Amino acid sequence: MEMFLKTREEYQKEVRAMRKNVWKDGHWIEDLFTEPSTCRMMELNCYKYDMLNDPECQPLMTAKSEFGDYKVARWLTIKHSAEDCMMSSKMKRLIFDNVGTCAASACTGWNAMQTIFAVGYDCDKEYGTHYYERITNWLKKVEKTACKVAGALTDAKGTRLLGGAQIGQQADPDVCVHKVAEDEKGIYVTGAKIMIAHAASAHWLFIVPGYRYNEENKEYAVAFAVPRDAEGVTLIQTDIRDNNIKPESWDDMRFNDHCSWIIFDNCFIPHEHVFQNGEAKYSDAFVTLFTANYRSEIGGCVAGQGDMMIGAAVVMNRANGLPDKVIQDKITDIMMINNMFYGIGLGALLDGWMHECGIWFANPNVGHSNKYWIGKYYAEQCRILQDIGGGIAETGCMPNYTDCTSPEMGPTIMKYIKANPAVSAETRARAVRLCEWLEYGNGFLAFIHGGSSPDGAKMVVRSCYDLEYLAKKACFVAGIDEVPAPVVKGK
Amino acid sequence: MEMFLKTREEYQKEVRAMRKNVWKDGHWIEDLFTEPSTCRMMELNCYKYDMLNDPECQPLMTAKSEFGDYKVARWLTIKHSAEDCMMSSKMKRLIFDNVGTCAASACTGWNAMQTIFAVGYDCDKEYGTHYYERITNWLKKVEKTACKVAGALTDAKGTRLLGGAQIGQQADPDVCVHKVAEDEKGIYVTGAKIMIAHAASAHWLFIVPGYRYNEENKEYAVAFAVPRDAEGVTLIQTDIRDNNIKPESWDDMRFNDHCSWIIFDNCFIPHEHVFQNGEAKYSDAFVTLFTANYRSEIGGCVAGQGDMMIGAAVVMNRANGLPDKVIQDKITDIMMINNMFYGIGLGALLDGWMHECGIWFANPNVGHSNKYWIGKYYAEQCRILQDIGGGIAETGCMPNYTDCTSPEMGPTIMKYIKANPAVSAETRARAVRLCEWLEYGNGFLAFIHGGSSPDGAKMVVRSCYDLEYLAKKACFVAGIDEVPAPVVKGK
Amino acid sequence: MEMFLKTREEYQKEVRAMRKNVWKDGHWIEDLFTEPSTCRMMELNCYKYDMLNDPECQPLMTAKSEFGDYKVARWLTIKHSAEDCMMSSKMKRLIFDNVGTCAASACTGWNAMQTIFAVGYDCDKEYGTHYYERITNWLKKVEKTACKVAGALTDAKGTRLLGGAQIGQQADPDVCVHKVAEDEKGIYVTGAKIMIAHAASAHWLFIVPGYRYNEENKEYAVAFAVPRDAEGVTLIQTDIRDNNIKPESWDDMRFNDHCSWIIFDNCFIPHEHVFQNGEAKYSDAFVTLFTANYRSEIGGCVAGQGDMMIGAAVVMNRANGLPDKVIQDKITDIMMINNMFYGIGLGALLDGWMHECGIWFANPNVGHSNKYWIGKYYAEQCRILQDIGGGIAETGCMPNYTDCTSPEMGPTIMKYIKANPAVSAETRARAVRLCEWLEYGNGFLAFIHGGSSPDGAKMVVRSCYDLEYLAKKACFVAGIDEVPAPVVKGK
Amino acid sequence: MEMFLKTREEYQKEVRAMRKNVWKDGHWIEDLFTEPSTCRMMELNCYKYDMLNDPECQPLMTAKSEFGDYKVARWLTIKHSAEDCMMSSKMKRLIFDNVGTCAASACTGWNAMQTIFAVGYDCDKEYGTHYYERITNWLKKVEKTACKVAGALTDAKGTRLLGGAQIGQQADPDVCVHKVAEDEKGIYVTGAKIMIAHAASAHWLFIVPGYRYNEENKEYAVAFAVPRDAEGVTLIQTDIRDNNIKPESWDDMRFNDHCSWIIFDNCFIPHEHVFQNGEAKYSDAFVTLFTANYRSEIGGCVAGQGDMMIGAAVVMNRANGLPDKVIQDKITDIMMINNMFYGIGLGALLDGWMHECGIWFANPNVGHSNKYWIGKYYAEQCRILQDIGGGIAETGCMPNYTDCTSPEMGPTIMKYIKANPAVSAETRARAVRLCEWLEYGNGFLAFIHGGSSPDGAKMVVRSCYDLEYLAKKACFVAGIDEVPAPVVKGK
Repeated sequence: MEMFLKTREEYQKEVRAMRKNVWKDGHWIEDLFTEPSTCRMMELNCYKYDMLNDPECQPLMTAKSEFGDYKVARWLTIKHSAEDCMMSSKMKRLIFDNVGTCAASACTGWNAMQTIFAVGYDCDKEYGTHYYERITNWLKKVEKTACKVAGALTDAKGTRLLGGAQIGQQADPDVCVHKVAEDEKGIYVTGAKIMIAHAASAHWLFIVPGYRYNEENKEYAVAFAVPRDAEGVTLIQTDIRDNNIKPESWDDMRFNDHCSWIIFDNCFIPHEHVFQNGEAKYSDAFVTLFTANYRSEIGGCVAGQGDMMIGAAVVMNRANGLPDKVIQDKITDIMMINNMFYGIGLGALLDGWMHECGIWFANPNVGHSNKYWIGKYYAEQCRILQDIGGGIAETGCMPNYTDCTSPEMGPTIMKYIKANPAVSAETRARAVRLCEWLEYGNGFLAFIHGGSSPDGAKMVVRSCYDLEYLAKKACFVAGIDEVPAPVVKGK
Repeated sequence: MEMFLKTREEYQKEVRAMRKNVWKDGHWIEDLFTEPSTCRMMELNCYKYDMLNDPECQPLMTAKSEFGDYKVARWLTIKHSAEDCMMSSKMKRLIFDNVGTCAASACTGWNAMQTIFAVGYDCDKEYGTHYYERITNWLKKVEKTACKVAGALTDAKGTRLLGGAQIGQQADPDVCVHKVAEDEKGIYVTGAKIMIAHAASAHWLFIVPGYRYNEENKEYAVAFAVPRDAEGVTLIQTDIRDNNIKPESWDDMRFNDHCSWIIFDNCFIPHEHVFQNGEAKYSDAFVTLFTANYRSEIGGCVAGQGDMMIGAAVVMNRANGLPDKVIQDKITDIMMINNMFYGIGLGALLDGWMHECGIWFANPNVGHSNKYWIGKYYAEQCRILQDIGGGIAETGCMPNYTDCTSPEMGPTIMKYIKANPAVSAETRARAVRLCEWLEYGNGFLAFIHGGSSPDGAKMVVRSCYDLEYLAKKACFVAGIDEVPAPVVKGK
Repeated sequence: MEMFLKTREEYQKEVRAMRKNVWKDGHWIEDLFTEPSTCRMMELNCYKYDMLNDPECQPLMTAKSEFGDYKVARWLTIKHSAEDCMMSSKMKRLIFDNVGTCAASACTGWNAMQTIFAVGYDCDKEYGTHYYERITNWLKKVEKTACKVAGALTDAKGTRLLGGAQIGQQADPDVCVHKVAEDEKGIYVTGAKIMIAHAASAHWLFIVPGYRYNEENKEYAVAFAVPRDAEGVTLIQTDIRDNNIKPESWDDMRFNDHCSWIIFDNCFIPHEHVFQNGEAKYSDAFVTLFTANYRSEIGGCVAGQGDMMIGAAVVMNRANGLPDKVIQDKITDIMMINNMFYGIGLGALLDGWMHECGIWFANPNVGHSNKYWIGKYYAEQCRILQDIGGGIAETGCMPNYTDCTSPEMGPTIMKYIKANPAVSAETRARAVRLCEWLEYGNGFLAFIHGGSSPDGAKMVVRSCYDLEYLAKKACFVAGIDEVPAPVVKGK
Repeated sequence: MEMFLKTREEYQKEVRAMRKNVWKDGHWIEDLFTEPSTCRMMELNCYKYDMLNDPECQPLMTAKSEFGDYKVARWLTIKHSAEDCMMSSKMKRLIFDNVGTCAASACTGWNAMQTIFAVGYDCDKEYGTHYYERITNWLKKVEKTACKVAGALTDAKGTRLLGGAQIGQQADPDVCVHKVAEDEKGIYVTGAKIMIAHAASAHWLFIVPGYRYNEENKEYAVAFAVPRDAEGVTLIQTDIRDNNIKPESWDDMRFNDHCSWIIFDNCFIPHEHVFQNGEAKYSDAFVTLFTANYRSEIGGCVAGQGDMMIGAAVVMNRANGLPDKVIQDKITDIMMINNMFYGIGLGALLDGWMHECGIWFANPNVGHSNKYWIGKYYAEQCRILQDIGGGIAETGCMPNYTDCTSPEMGPTIMKYIKANPAVSAETRARAVRLCEWLEYGNGFLAFIHGGSSPDGAKMVVRSCYDLEYLAKKACFVAGIDEVPAPVVKGK
């Protein structure tokens, strides 16, 4: 079957042709591929295009087009079944297995698009709008380009005391993205979406509301697609870690995750790319649908990172000079946690439901639980890796690349890094940095709050259980005739 | 669609007509339905027949026949897909939601049958045997009878130091079930299968090997079906709890689980009911296939018991006189654990595989993890319920039914049991016993080792991860050229 | 140094001479030492008197008298230092190590006495009462008798919605023990203290308030000592487990814990035994002081039970036929948990404080944490033991003593219980019952709520941390000039 | 009582007068107080001298001299009782409460000195050496100088397959510190001690063996004191985090921990500072005694860091605009973990023992458990803080100081950081960095392996339990006559 792909060279050319609207360290970044703070992130994206062209990876990286008998990048197709969703989870795990970090613009953007189809469909049915057609047209236009799409839900938010319904009481109206003007060509938006993974490496951004709004503040109920480098869009990169690490240094990994704040300043969006425009009633449907699937499929990501931890543990332990058997029980614990994340996620998908428009969504009760468990157990995987690595991989306590390679002190340092006689000191040094990266540098970062908080997950789960039904069943078993009524305090 | 069901009355009649081969407390049980130690177990089975006849339950309790366009009890059908398996898990959860304990002869027997189809198919292919046809014939014969089938894997085993391959070194050859003779009509077996849930209430027993055997001891490689009351079969009931509790007492619940030791003493099995007869190479395929599915689908059971705990917590807390809000966080924790068990199980099924004969099996890596997590977290649900109930529901520390209802002391005791003015003292007493039952009396019993041990699960999971592959990926990310070789101690 | 002890024979004689005011199973118990439901509890108490007379145990079981240069039973002395308290914890661990269950009337009664000294002292100072002298006189009178003393705080309580301050709103005033009359000889009390460990085997009961009361309901602020068999006192035994197990059966252990509901019906207490009589302001000082020490010293008890679990694990595993190495990691986990309980408790004592009257009390912040961790981890020790024992020790699933020893079926059952050829089937059967007893029958019962609930512990701990102080320190480190003020919702 | 202290100015002057033997980032550090990578560490040490001079802190920061009736810095005194040790733990907690990180040269050096007294005493007794006198003389010399002392146990170690007894088989003899020559003035040592906290800020280094050696390799059995800037000593600083952060930036905290590799190259140690010189039999006594106390007293450190986390949580949550109540349960969990670490540590001290020379040591069984629990639960405190902080404090995902303060983009960024209207954006930014620092930057680093590994702790604990004793007790309770013998595999 014909395939529409993209090479790393094409990708580089496209990104370099974009407007320079990415800021870091006091300047606009001239070339994302060579800037020290972003070069590893961009290499990650290039590598994913390599994978897209790799026949071994293509069964997961590509899928049949929505619109014809050919294949396109999987993240530009629609998921119609639990199996489709599982393939998405597996693709992300494959990417993590290879690059050790976030699947980046093949995840949140895709997932946001999925919700736009469904919410658009419902909206059209009630209001006679044409969002479903618009998003269809957008997809038709881009599916063969293998472009990258970042999705963005999280607003700057202002004080947390005020939610979407009280947005009007915020001191600054811009803390959430909103429409500031409209004309026949399109709308104009202002505000900030923050902590958006891989926005800087994407071609497109999908913006959806992060709160439930109401009629009084319906200008916040906006969803749209916008090119990353559109006028009125500014990206500020955020990671403080890799500022000044030289590209050749082994203190950072081949690849890296990254994150942007996206600032909209009276940014124009043509109507054809607007997918919600004031239909406040449907504003939080994006969040609901997005999070259920996101939290289910993310199992593949976290398990993929766990896979990398297992590999790192094996390498580190051998570099230390010890037999694999020594760490057997500990890596089994990592495996068990891996399988929990991956398993709950797939379980939520199997027990999912089909939206009227033919798109599959996860069971929210089970799906949100996955995020709770990931938030609880991801740190445990890090802890186990730390336990395995020994002090040197735990303590941020190995001399840095500059010193390891300095003519004056380097040889002495490497003499003492050397452990297993059959493994070079450099390999051990790199293994140490890999462990550190996995423990503090990377995934630990976002697995608690990424895609909304554990407390949010708890609320969803609680709402899915029917206490009166369960109380009734319990009474039956215990031979209690009358289910006791809830106690009301103060009565 | 036509349905072939069975009523509780028909079931009672059938069981009462059986040979009296169930022993407890020094005598053969005359009537399982009225004997104090078994009456609650039998009521559980009756109630399941009520559910089979309840139109609200039938979508889960029944399914389309394997052989025609009509419906039969779901546990007498074959699972051909992840969805079929999910329906099995959901049916078990529904049963637990209603009776608070084990799904009993609609689980292990069914699952054993499933493996007999697949193993028989493979065996036939290699050896030209006819097991697939035999089990098909058996199913055709019974599918319309809604009969109950208990499955049995676990042998008495003798010393644990010797596994299946060393069975010949056991002091007593009978510690595992084996063939002692054969003639043209059938085979004769001796030995014991122990700790078999709901064997006494079943119509049929499915016996499969519990170890991997080899050519030297192939007489142990036997699988067969046998009526519960066949000559040469004796059942010994084991629970020490409910010996002497009067049927009307609220110290035990409406229903109860139970367990048997099945003793075979030169028991004759006609060839048509023999599904393995010396094909040692395929002896452990039963275990492998059985446990993967069992440990996946059991998520529904444990979550169902968790559901009952949530209901019990609500009732107990109200009986104590407190608002639901007080226990909100604690029952959310029970819910999260529930969803973990249920979710991992379904996930293993979605990521499963189809056997050549068209039967679906779970992903063993994920499926076995579920057992690990159940074994680890089930006790936590009990602990939370205990925490919620307060001292009276924790301590085995409430006066018993006899004293609560004694004319002399009963009124005084009930005066002090009374808490919430709107709830009777009897309701609170019953709620206490329900909590105790859930904490110690019931599920806690078997969820660690039922269907093989957590250590067994760990071994399977470990074998599913490819360490060299993962080490290679880790090295790539860290820029390590050569994957370090395993360290061999003593070299 | 001279020692004042007591033998088991003397104890038996004393108990048998008491009024028959203990009720169970519909009748007053004639002889606690032979009644099936209480014989094991009484044997436990006898055995403790054996230990008191055992020179090896005397360094822990006895201590120097408060009043002279001789030794008495340690639980009739006063603890003046962290070391004294540690010896108490060690004594309890020794008892648990020997009998596997609760230290019984050498714990709560002693601890209650300790608080009566301190609270009495404070009360006397403010009100000119003479409680300190009264408790001193009481101790002088009994210290040489090695008598047993049970302490009782927990009232029946009625609806939990109403605490001590709202006791007047309870439907039944008797749900907490209170004074109903007073004359020049003494006071008269009515009400119930429930779930009181080892009350039936004690000589004396120490009753202290279980709530903070106020002036409106000061008749509830009563503390006193009363002989177990005084007129107006009735004990109702509660454990439903051991009703009908024959004394010779191995289905129950040599010893057992037990629990009473103590009913006061217009019971007369002479003034000399009254230690609080309406001083409501000091009513909850008993609870506060009692729980801090109780929850610290209990570490020795729970660790002692953990010790017994380790021993049971070793025996069970050997009876199964496996090398000790197989369970090494699992019992190490039990040990770690043991050391946590024991260690936190001792830590709270070391960081304790001396009351003006010269008595030592634990640091409540640390002490209450211990109960939280015990409540959380005790179940984990049970779970590990269950994991070690295998199915037979987990499932309540071994035939009972009657059947194991029946002439007809016994030999067959024992044939299949036999595992390790060097260990008798009876030993394995007994090991199974020991494991079950430890998992469900015994300590699991009371370690969550015994001595007040985990939620109560949380409240105490929270009150011990100064958030503003910590916020200030955090701001200093981060270079924040002004500590943000608390946010008030609705403002 | 007279006090011998030191001011920050005196300390600065002394350190600036030292030889420049500290290397980082390709150069010898000229001034540790102004170098970006070390300025925060040195400020931490200065601040501790401020605390030493602060009357409010002096009760913990100072103690009575060993040699006279005056006070000196507490870390230059000897601990003779559980109370002394508790004061050490409390002093460390106070320091952590104030600076949020490691107590630095008032901990490991002190603890090493403590062991030198005891091991020296034992050695002298057996061999007639004079180590006890030497260390006494050293202490007399320095006690009034309030100097800082870092202790060092951990060698570079080479391949982990070879322990102390096989050190001769290492490819490089220098992987552990050892004597290479000796003359009448002293000894000459070569090798590396790595990952030594706060070595660069200390006046003295205490070096003790990190393994048990034997007669064949007794040249490794060396212990000594050496000035930090002695000839033949080189320190390499290791933390890769703070390389390039400007001193005024809020991206790092006011203080910081740090770590050195100490390289000895034929370094001369005069005999008067040598405390072990070939007495291999006593080489591991340092480790044993050191770790028991270290792991007990560290409870104060980790709890102090937990205190800082609680403070950070409160500040962060208020900066986010939420009421304290929202995080109440979560910070209670941090408190409980705090109390566990602190409590177990103190418990090990209370149950400790006095060495013949009058020095107090912790119970190793309980003390080592503390490290196990710290290694297990420290990450949980970080996780909870991360959960509380929200995405912005979790993801390394806030723009950096340079960008927050850039004239071009700073105002826009700060507009979107602003949350609670009553709290400045800068305060929120600083709170974010404080949370990140606590989660990844600091204590998480060393609490698993610092002072030896969790596996080491397990081995010690295991060796402290007597399995045969416990098995015997278990058998007694279960009525088992004969304790089963251990099963030997292969027999």
